[in-house]
Amino acid sequence: MSTFGKIFRVTTFGESHCKGVGAIVDGVPPGLALTENDIQPQLSRRRPGQSKLTTPRDEKDRVTVMSGTEFGVTLGTPIGLTVPNLDQRPHDYSETDVYPRPSHADYTYLQKYGLKASSGGGRASARETIGRVAAGAIAEKYLKEAFGVEIVAFTSSVGKVAMPFVTDLQENDVVKPEFYDFLNTIDRETVDADITRCPHAETSEAIKEVITQKSAEQDSIGGTVTCVIRRCPVGLGEPCFDKLEAILAHAMLSIPATKGFEFGSGFSGTTMAGHQHNDPFVRKEDGTFGTTTNYSGGVQGGISNGENIYFRVAFKPAATISRDQETTSYDGVWGTLAARGRHDPCVVPRAVPIVESMAALVIMDLAMQQEARRGAIARLPSIDIHHSLLGQPPK
Amino acid sequence: MSTFGKIFRVTTFGESHCKGVGAIVDGVPPGLALTENDIQPQLSRRRPGQSKLTTPRDEKDRVTVMSGTEFGVTLGTPIGLTVPNLDQRPHDYSETDVYPRPSHADYTYLQKYGLKASSGGGRASARETIGRVAAGAIAEKYLKEAFGVEIVAFTSSVGKVAMPFVTDLQENDVVKPEFYDFLNTIDRETVDADITRCPHAETSEAIKEVITQKSAEQDSIGGTVTCVIRRCPVGLGEPCFDKLEAILAHAMLSIPATKGFEFGSGFSGTTMAGHQHNDPFVRKEDGTFGTTTNYSGGVQGGISNGENIYFRVAFKPAATISRDQETTSYDGVWGTLAARGRHDPCVVPRAVPIVESMAALVIMDLAMQQEARRGAIARLPSIDIHHSLLGQPPK
Amino acid sequence: MSTFGKIFRVTTFGESHCKGVGAIVDGVPPGLALTENDIQPQLSRRRPGQSKLTTPRDEKDRVTVMSGTEFGVTLGTPIGLTVPNLDQRPHDYSETDVYPRPSHADYTYLQKYGLKASSGGGRASARETIGRVAAGAIAEKYLKEAFGVEIVAFTSSVGKVAMPFVTDLQENDVVKPEFYDFLNTIDRETVDADITRCPHAETSEAIKEVITQKSAEQDSIGGTVTCVIRRCPVGLGEPCFDKLEAILAHAMLSIPATKGFEFGSGFSGTTMAGHQHNDPFVRKEDGTFGTTTNYSGGVQGGISNGENIYFRVAFKPAATISRDQETTSYDGVWGTLAARGRHDPCVVPRAVPIVESMAALVIMDLAMQQEARRGAIARLPSIDIHHSLLGQPPK
Amino acid sequence: MSTFGKIFRVTTFGESHCKGVGAIVDGVPPGLALTENDIQPQLSRRRPGQSKLTTPRDEKDRVTVMSGTEFGVTLGTPIGLTVPNLDQRPHDYSETDVYPRPSHADYTYLQKYGLKASSGGGRASARETIGRVAAGAIAEKYLKEAFGVEIVAFTSSVGKVAMPFVTDLQENDVVKPEFYDFLNTIDRETVDADITRCPHAETSEAIKEVITQKSAEQDSIGGTVTCVIRRCPVGLGEPCFDKLEAILAHAMLSIPATKGFEFGSGFSGTTMAGHQHNDPFVRKEDGTFGTTTNYSGGVQGGISNGENIYFRVAFKPAATISRDQETTSYDGVWGTLAARGRHDPCVVPRAVPIVESMAALVIMDLAMQQEARRGAIARLPSIDIHHSLLGQPPK
Repeated sequence: MSTFGKIFRVTTFGESHCKGVGAIVDGVPPGLALTENDIQPQLSRRRPGQSKLTTPRDEKDRVTVMSGTEFGVTLGTPIGLTVPNLDQRPHDYSETDVYPRPSHADYTYLQKYGLKASSGGGRASARETIGRVAAGAIAEKYLKEAFGVEIVAFTSSVGKVAMPFVTDLQENDVVKPEFYDFLNTIDRETVDADITRCPHAETSEAIKEVITQKSAEQDSIGGTVTCVIRRCPVGLGEPCFDKLEAILAHAMLSIPATKGFEFGSGFSGTTMAGHQHNDPFVRKEDGTFGTTTNYSGGVQGGISNGENIYFRVAFKPAATISRDQETTSYDGVWGTLAARGRHDPCVVPRAVPIVESMAALVIMDLAMQQEARRGAIARLPSIDIHHSLLGQPPK
Repeated sequence: MSTFGKIFRVTTFGESHCKGVGAIVDGVPPGLALTENDIQPQLSRRRPGQSKLTTPRDEKDRVTVMSGTEFGVTLGTPIGLTVPNLDQRPHDYSETDVYPRPSHADYTYLQKYGLKASSGGGRASARETIGRVAAGAIAEKYLKEAFGVEIVAFTSSVGKVAMPFVTDLQENDVVKPEFYDFLNTIDRETVDADITRCPHAETSEAIKEVITQKSAEQDSIGGTVTCVIRRCPVGLGEPCFDKLEAILAHAMLSIPATKGFEFGSGFSGTTMAGHQHNDPFVRKEDGTFGTTTNYSGGVQGGISNGENIYFRVAFKPAATISRDQETTSYDGVWGTLAARGRHDPCVVPRAVPIVESMAALVIMDLAMQQEARRGAIARLPSIDIHHSLLGQPPK
Repeated sequence: MSTFGKIFRVTTFGESHCKGVGAIVDGVPPGLALTENDIQPQLSRRRPGQSKLTTPRDEKDRVTVMSGTEFGVTLGTPIGLTVPNLDQRPHDYSETDVYPRPSHADYTYLQKYGLKASSGGGRASARETIGRVAAGAIAEKYLKEAFGVEIVAFTSSVGKVAMPFVTDLQENDVVKPEFYDFLNTIDRETVDADITRCPHAETSEAIKEVITQKSAEQDSIGGTVTCVIRRCPVGLGEPCFDKLEAILAHAMLSIPATKGFEFGSGFSGTTMAGHQHNDPFVRKEDGTFGTTTNYSGGVQGGISNGENIYFRVAFKPAATISRDQETTSYDGVWGTLAARGRHDPCVVPRAVPIVESMAALVIMDLAMQQEARRGAIARLPSIDIHHSLLGQPPK
Repeated sequence: MSTFGKIFRVTTFGESHCKGVGAIVDGVPPGLALTENDIQPQLSRRRPGQSKLTTPRDEKDRVTVMSGTEFGVTLGTPIGLTVPNLDQRPHDYSETDVYPRPSHADYTYLQKYGLKASSGGGRASARETIGRVAAGAIAEKYLKEAFGVEIVAFTSSVGKVAMPFVTDLQENDVVKPEFYDFLNTIDRETVDADITRCPHAETSEAIKEVITQKSAEQDSIGGTVTCVIRRCPVGLGEPCFDKLEAILAHAMLSIPATKGFEFGSGFSGTTMAGHQHNDPFVRKEDGTFGTTTNYSGGVQGGISNGENIYFRVAFKPAATISRDQETTSYDGVWGTLAARGRHDPCVVPRAVPIVESMAALVIMDLAMQQEARRGAIARLPSIDIHHSLLGQPPK
């Protein structure tokens, strides 16, 4: 369905050629300063047409806050968000009347819904992500103000070109300290300084070459986005089905064109020995607990432990390419789907703010769920029993 | 929370040292032949103590169907399932009173819930998965009878030892035909014929060596489970947030000890070119549509397309190891958590039925959601408009 | 929260003085002919300012379908609906800065959300109901086309003036046949023919007198709306917590200013003897089953039985009156909240389409839930066992 | 479905003739002292066979806490509850093989689920309510300890015999002060002192006569239960669809045999004038706000205001009577369903703890939802703007 979250809930609408897209964000805490200016930047980062590396179509997505605020402050009531579609012509892909596009959603939407929209895959359009990004910006603003949470995503690979220390684990079974340092310090300005959104100069140059080459070949290429969530409160995640990583995975795999998700040591961690992979606890200077390594990726038993949460999302090469493709028509006849127009050879840089937004929605909703529990506990007389007195629990 | 699914809904209870574990399965279609005998086999496959490669503790988990059936047929009412805990002693880990176990859930549960159970991580215990597996067996039985769905999972890697053709994609950018053949034919008997549940003799032998070595070293090792869903109906998955792969990812990452999920081409697919990665459509002999390759993993636009759905899940090395570990006590003092007992060096073989069960729950719930839509469409007068007549839609 | 329904889901936004109100309707079956013209009539019936009996403010609510349709047909994707607020001035009730209005939501909203909107009660405003009515019109159109469902509500009482045979039960323990006849035939045209929406000339005249008198007294008066749902499919309602009557009650009590709900024999039924109250079954000419009386109100065991569903909703006298009222200021000082403007003395006639809309949302969602079950049953091999063969089950 | 609540969630299972009934209660705050002894009393109050006025069958329902506690304290994990069925014979109603019982759920269950259980109406059995009552006892214990909430229900009418001041409103448009006093002081001991659970001697005597007479006539009679919730925290209820009264109505109408719900002034309030019905605010000695009258029933704008919440629930005469009944067989033949056994002539006294339990579940879940918001607000920097400074908001 089109709703995400339990307490902080986002519901989106809109496809490519209708009047507009948008979202309703329910459960926003009242008293948060919020205007369109808090939302627009992430929408602009998501927008196509930002550079020669991406598709030239400039959609100029301007968001309007329809409800839920007054004098620039949230009321606690649902926030309606709308973004008009400038191109509302219902039909622009006549060739796709004949052929379901390979690895697109044309065929499955027809099968599921029994009819065919002009846009083919309907809500599979990247335009659907506008509502998520707008909603995510609200979540992010709250998390920043309430907890100091910082969420930063970046391009970690395109094709076979990958940032070195981010993926080194596979080779020598240990994470390099520079990776942890990097996760602690990377920020959006640094990410946006380069058009590829890969914050590693050498890798970025190589990525540009790959994308340029694919563009010249009327082809596309995939890649991965890595994301870190810093200063996430301890205790988020709702076992057993709504573990933090489960909700994150759900959120990430709901983004169009994704193929995989891993957090912490991820797939690489499967090759490690337990005694290496276990993260010893350490008491930090401020008295709180941390871990000396962070293969856990900030989550243990489905619950955040206060360390950086980091994860990686795989994006396939865009299905829309500027090449002729052989495939079968709706009539069942093998033939050639002719190329039309120019398309974005690599969606990965644009996916960066989408990943951040979905991460914010996940943390926000889990944070409010934990507030419910924390508040409920606080009203009980404190219990003086064996359980809670096994050593003084760390603050 | 402890509920999974929207129409076919599973709610579980129970941790290690309470009186029992179990589940309520709501939304089961009435008229399905069902007794304990349909559920027990998967529980027994999940059970520890099956071989010298796994933990010796034999829990003998026997399930009782408390409600929802009569004369061996489901009534459509909730099915209550209980499995007694034979070891109900509330306390068996005294050392863990002093130290939160590294990479376990002891610390995060204490932080989240404000108290500490005997079992440490409470519901993070593998015993929690009994309810899922029992519920999954019911879903699986229905899917088999209604659609002929077949779900088979197997150990695809342990440590650095991996089945060859399953992971070849990374090397030469194409999937070998033998991989597709394998997915079409692998069955549970073959999987269970080997103690490692890796259905590839050479790999299995190497895996046994790895596990034996880790056992000797009082260490543990991770691995991956690959799963295929065959004959999944076309049209399952609920865009935009409840895409089939998003719900699958949610389900898989809710299993204890998981670190990653990928479906279809997965992370490897990110290095491919679009023109290679796109799956051309082809009309099959029976008139339905298929694809010549299957990098999509049976899902396009978040919706099943009728091809095999396949995915891989990463499991970390078990956090519980039979070695001393240096870490910090609840009091904040660095010290040594002494090893106790013998533990399963590799959870991957036991995870196989858990992965299958969660897959069954996902497909079952999405299938019922699509029945709601399909039924609703069927009651409308058929529409004779442009949309639906672009060629005869494939059946 | 602001979402209603499980499969057919409505989420609304908007309060009195923001830019607009609206809704997202998710889960709409694809292939339904739908334009603004299908929605506007109910919005116009809901609108204030329709007569001298109601508030003079003319809001001219025009709905725009933002998404989810193409060429006038639903796509199965979410339908975004917006209605602009013509009066977007954030502040028009300065007196209410000083006093929380008695029996309004000013005080409770302040307590709940920690701040105070210009509109006082925020979403407690009647304007919030626009989204429901728009969504309900979509549900209603589907139900009409798919099942021939007819939903008609009407004013059954205002103050102490009540339609005679609708309430006779209390006097002589039997329902008059004319009541059943009336439920079978009443239609919206007849209801709308009179400004009070009470389709009983004598009662309507008396109601007009009551309202005119209350208006002259700058006072307000409550009343009840009775609603009948005809041709509801058999089998709707999801025991045990989501019985049809439970969801209906939830829906109705979520309408502003409601105080009670009863269905079938309702409160009057509590005084009857069981042998009178039980509805004998009868086989109808078309072979289906019905009942000779209908104290059950079309629902047995929480599930529709095919007979007319009828219920009654109580509305309190509007809290906003054109009289001075003594009460306490936010500062805690007893004083006089001065009357301002002219207000609708009786909301009951305007509530009629709101009741119908909520009823449509309830039936629509439960119908889709039952489609899920029905479809799932149909795929199982038919069972030839004792249960289902106790006599031939009625079709 | 069989789940109630969003954060504090109850899922139940079980029907009359299966192995047992029970519930899973998820979201219980950790740290609450809880054993079977906290749950059993309400189960025993619900149990049939308590007196000659009710059915003689003694089920001796003993609850077992399967999980979620340790050393008598809740862990925050799901609490599994089971109660065995002593009478597990799958078939005891052979006559009902031939006739669907009038106003029972036999017919609708058959239509909905496509098969027929021995028990006829499956989950429509009163035995289903055991799970609710057990879960409600947990909610109630928490609410008592955390907020001092008190919930007391009682029989307010049976047949035409009604407690005088509880229903006087209809006669003279004002509530008598003794009604408010009564709501403030009534307790369960007083209620249970009389077998009818009507805490008004004169009325109780008359009720006993009515029930005795109905029993002699092999007939049944309905009635109403009134319930008061005292010391409910201010701010509970989630507009717009999950208003407190809407969730209460949902909860109450999900109880078997209910026909109506009203809160505060209820249906009687519809006949009042607004200036009478509005509840003026008053600052109480402790500085908090209250109202001088309470026609609002403790809820304004869907949100609790701190005053007593009171409501009334209508129960129909039990459908099962010890008389022959003329009706139609499953085969469609009109005939006589012969009376069998002796049955409870009035379910109202037994419904009292069920009403209390459902009320507790409603308040508990809404309280935790409000904790989520309250906690989230508290983490924001306090806002110093127009909205929140309109007078000092009452504490």
